[in-house]
Amino acid sequence: MALPKSVTIREVGPREGMQIEKNHVATADKIRLVDLLSACNFSDIEVTSFVSPKAVPQMADASEVAAGFTPNPATRYTCVYLNTKGAERALATGKLDVEGILTVTASETFSKRNTNRDIEQTFTETRERIEGLSSLGVKIDQVSILAAFGCNYEGDIDPRHVISLTARLMDMAREHGLGIGTIQLADTMGWANPNSIRRLVGDVKNRWPDPVINLHLHDTRGLGLMNVMAAMEIGVDDFDSSVGGLGGCPFAGFSGAAGNIATEDLVHLCGELGVETGIDLDRLIDAAREAELIVGHPLPGKVMHGGALAAYRRRVPA
Amino acid sequence: MALPKSVTIREVGPREGMQIEKNHVATADKIRLVDLLSACNFSDIEVTSFVSPKAVPQMADASEVAAGFTPNPATRYTCVYLNTKGAERALATGKLDVEGILTVTASETFSKRNTNRDIEQTFTETRERIEGLSSLGVKIDQVSILAAFGCNYEGDIDPRHVISLTARLMDMAREHGLGIGTIQLADTMGWANPNSIRRLVGDVKNRWPDPVINLHLHDTRGLGLMNVMAAMEIGVDDFDSSVGGLGGCPFAGFSGAAGNIATEDLVHLCGELGVETGIDLDRLIDAAREAELIVGHPLPGKVMHGGALAAYRRRVPA
Repeated sequence: MALPKSVTIREVGPREGMQIEKNHVATADKIRLVDLLSACNFSDIEVTSFVSPKAVPQMADASEVAAGFTPNPATRYTCVYLNTKGAERALATGKLDVEGILTVTASETFSKRNTNRDIEQTFTETRERIEGLSSLGVKIDQVSILAAFGCNYEGDIDPRHVISLTARLMDMAREHGLGIGTIQLADTMGWANPNSIRRLVGDVKNRWPDPVINLHLHDTRGLGLMNVMAAMEIGVDDFDSSVGGLGGCPFAGFSGAAGNIATEDLVHLCGELGVETGIDLDRLIDAAREAELIVGHPLPGKVMHGGALAAYRRRVPA
Repeated sequence: MALPKSVTIREVGPREGMQIEKNHVATADKIRLVDLLSACNFSDIEVTSFVSPKAVPQMADASEVAAGFTPNPATRYTCVYLNTKGAERALATGKLDVEGILTVTASETFSKRNTNRDIEQTFTETRERIEGLSSLGVKIDQVSILAAFGCNYEGDIDPRHVISLTARLMDMAREHGLGIGTIQLADTMGWANPNSIRRLVGDVKNRWPDPVINLHLHDTRGLGLMNVMAAMEIGVDDFDSSVGGLGGCPFAGFSGAAGNIATEDLVHLCGELGVETGIDLDRLIDAAREAELIVGHPLPGKVMHGGALAAYRRRVPA
């Protein structure tokens, strides 16, 4: 039950949040949000996504956003891309750390719906992806399993299936001489609970003790932070999260995508538990409030509305 | 880490929720909400509050609400009252289980602000309360400590202080020949975390192993369900919660009161973990959605917006 001394938190709001917003968000607002987040001392901020402007018009200004923000030298700026063309656009910015990630979706149905490929096609294309990215000089050192805990179309996902998919990606990486430093497990549709976190993370750690395990958790059913807690208790120290809980539309009913866990809630939790994050919570809360104004609807983050306990403690008369 | 086989969940939304709403809620809507909740098989629903209509105009129709709902024979219907006059009004309804509770607030400042009495005055009046309630035939069998984990005005509350206050109430009860079956610890302003839950609950259980411990948790900083989880892991099996997370206004900034943990999120969590609640989750989600319409603003519950996993599982093709 001993918690990690410190955790790494990757801020994904500018990418995952902006991708889902129905309201138009001006490029200048996106840039301002990245700059506000840069002031919080993140080690890693995911800035944008280089995808088809036809498929995701919200991300058509990816290059402009990348060109516009002011980097903090202490922060890595990353992005999402789907193919080598996207990677080339990302590299052309000259400001982003273009990560090489091998990704597969654990649900056949969601894989087809989300990526237009089934799992076998994904593996076939992974070989091409490795070659394409390598030719661009992109270092491939991560694998990622989406929908690793459950799927709205297929229900619960068997952890043995996730281990088997991970093993195929790890084997493929090894065949190409790639060293994998991070295994990401994404609870894309909010199916995880503390028991399933302990089970799957335990299985992955038993099989691959060396890579960092990163958890990308959605808070669809309110268990996001609890899942972080369960993961920290078994040694996980690397999490994605989103300022304000951006990335979902909790008030859109069943069809609404689920937001990520809110970064400031996670930072606050860690602070209360004595787990270091290195992140400036006051500035982060300011950024979350600004994000709420930018998207023009309430965000689900709690601490941004309820106030940080540290701030209350400062106001207590001595 | 073994969880309880089952937990008792007391629904407090009709009382705690309606008390805080700024929009006027019609008496008929309050009654309808109680009736919707009655269909969910709660063992206990807190219906309303018999307090000064001048101080809390939202509760001026307490007697009408009590008169109007249709009881489920499997459910106890309870209420809040502050003094013997309120208890008399509650008894006059003939439909409510008027509980006898001895309450003290662990924060001096909050005690004065919330009840217009300091802690010593509260103890003095507790003797009068015991006599007044006993003369009405109200059975006193609970003690309750408000702000037991922290206070926005005084910061963290020392668990030894909470134990000391609890001991004074327990002693007073024993002097009057009262058997205390329940000790309630309320995190009124959302200061608890899993560590402080384990610490204080552990201390209380060590000192008073027999009474049921009830936790009344607010989700001000997103740790509500996580705190339930930590409590269940050390054997707590009695919780208050509020349909939809009613009882707060998460989008009102710092001045907004914090909502309780959302009942349907708690019931859903328990279902995922195999902990029985006896509550009909589908009906409860319907009630939460209706509650959102009734109050006219988004409620913070997650499962009511993201959908129950059981419902998704039912839709998976065989």
